Amino acid sequence: MYDVIIIGAGIAGLSAGLYCSRLKMKTLIISKDIGGQLTLAPEIQNYPGFASIRGFDLIMRIYNQIKSLSIDMVYDEVTKIEEEDEQFVVYTTSNQKFTALSLILAFGKSPRELNVPGEQEFRGKGVSYCAICDAPLYKGKTVALAGIGDAGIHAAIVLSDVVNKCHWVFPTPTPTQDLDLLEAIKSRNNLKLYPNSRIIEIKGDKRVTAIVIENIKTKEKTQINVNGVFIEMGYIPKTSFVKGFVQLNDKGEIIVNEVCETSRKGVFAAGDVTNMPYKQAIISAGQGAVAALSAYNYVAQIKGYRQISREWSHISNKQHEKKGGLFFKV
Amino acid sequence: MYDVIIIGAGIAGLSAGLYCSRLKMKTLIISKDIGGQLTLAPEIQNYPGFASIRGFDLIMRIYNQIKSLSIDMVYDEVTKIEEEDEQFVVYTTSNQKFTALSLILAFGKSPRELNVPGEQEFRGKGVSYCAICDAPLYKGKTVALAGIGDAGIHAAIVLSDVVNKCHWVFPTPTPTQDLDLLEAIKSRNNLKLYPNSRIIEIKGDKRVTAIVIENIKTKEKTQINVNGVFIEMGYIPKTSFVKGFVQLNDKGEIIVNEVCETSRKGVFAAGDVTNMPYKQAIISAGQGAVAALSAYNYVAQIKGYRQISREWSHISNKQHEKKGGLFFKV
Repeated sequence: MYDVIIIGAGIAGLSAGLYCSRLKMKTLIISKDIGGQLTLAPEIQNYPGFASIRGFDLIMRIYNQIKSLSIDMVYDEVTKIEEEDEQFVVYTTSNQKFTALSLILAFGKSPRELNVPGEQEFRGKGVSYCAICDAPLYKGKTVALAGIGDAGIHAAIVLSDVVNKCHWVFPTPTPTQDLDLLEAIKSRNNLKLYPNSRIIEIKGDKRVTAIVIENIKTKEKTQINVNGVFIEMGYIPKTSFVKGFVQLNDKGEIIVNEVCETSRKGVFAAGDVTNMPYKQAIISAGQGAVAALSAYNYVAQIKGYRQISREWSHISNKQHEKKGGLFFKV
Repeated sequence: MYDVIIIGAGIAGLSAGLYCSRLKMKTLIISKDIGGQLTLAPEIQNYPGFASIRGFDLIMRIYNQIKSLSIDMVYDEVTKIEEEDEQFVVYTTSNQKFTALSLILAFGKSPRELNVPGEQEFRGKGVSYCAICDAPLYKGKTVALAGIGDAGIHAAIVLSDVVNKCHWVFPTPTPTQDLDLLEAIKSRNNLKLYPNSRIIEIKGDKRVTAIVIENIKTKEKTQINVNGVFIEMGYIPKTSFVKGFVQLNDKGEIIVNEVCETSRKGVFAAGDVTNMPYKQAIISAGQGAVAALSAYNYVAQIKGYRQISREWSHISNKQHEKKGGLFFKV
């Protein structure tokens, strides 16, 4: 039985983990990976304290910062959460089950999916959601790109630097309104554009071998042989498994108040998965700390321990820690 | 005329400055000092990204990070703010006057004062609000300490390490309920305790020479010769000059919502001066970024420019910046 389970190990989850473990809470982090979206940022210049740092390096610094603390970590995907007798039960893909007095939901956003036949089957077998990660694997090969928005344009540029041919499928008449960008794309001869079109099927054997596209206007279908499919249509919160458990907004984001409380007592949330409109590393890190302090106070109340004064200074932190943690009996 | 004036240069103000200037807003920071309370923290272990860093060093890193950006800085104290025709006019102690389309209030907290005769007169001439900063100046001398709470105990320990004699005045029967700390204090022979007492006057010539204390119960008054007076009674928001301008809570903190908007349109706030209950460096840094993004969107709206999508990625940031800033005409 944990004091707190943190779901997600992006910057919000790791920041929450740092605070929870320093508060001597029995803490578990469950996550599919370390770092989430931030690891893909080639350079961050707006995290106060670092004039320039790779996203991956920032994450590794924070990961090392908490590694030495007393914290459990499980690499797994959460599929279901239930509340029983004021305790939370968390189920994972690999049929593990964990319980805690409080939860911090910090699993960020996931790539938007196509939802077409073959997509799940060939995931990792030719279907990729990250051009910057996987483009080098397709050097000299032929790929398809389902790409919209900034993410789509960025992926098209990254791919055309590496692959032999990239079939770029998008549902709009033009991939961007930006004339400068359109000009930049035109000069890249290995990009073939398919406007007003969408991928309706991904075919393959052991790996991807082809896509079927449909022209939205003419309904004409075409099969194109490819070695891989990149899906770059932005990120969305993958919150369907907590729908009904906590309140979501119309974007599927978890609604939190200014101290990161969700609509359910004992459940807190932080980072890109929340309705905080601005998605930035420093904001997620701050929210992680807020969620941890709110979770601490919630658990302290249940256990009949003294809640920390919300007005704690660095000095009092130090004094508390000297005594082996903040969980004193009143 | 500035797009935004940020009042305060603690971590919240500097973080806001970083974001505003990177968004190509015409930005001014007005502050009495750089770094505020954080510069006094001897070691910070809970700022994600740094396993251990001095408060001063963290602030200097952030200061250097924004120094290269286009940002104006004025060392002064703000005395009055007025709104005229949807513009904000900021007046300072040295009779300067600045105008801006938006404001970010980030001036943190200030030491709680005694409010007794002599206190203002001998400020910096024997009256200090920071034991950890100024104790070394009183090596071998006699000082008084008006100290309560954690701040008071910490100051007593710091002072007794250095001074010849410290007269510690506090209004309660005992300086702390903590038996361990009481024991630690007892063994320090150069600490003289004055329970149930308060300083009612600070006397001096060019510098402090004596205090007058009063026993709260007996009303007995005593004069004690001292070379200095340390006032360590915690920090409060010094918001009297914005009372009526923005809504405050009963602690005098500026009330903000989850996107750091105050009760007045165009005025934002971040950090310890706000009603955010948890006061932590990383939380203030996050709030500074939020306030900056909210101020940006406010100014963009006034100017008829396109508001930034709230859902911007690192990629789109980069693309925006390439074009010389985010202020595009629609």
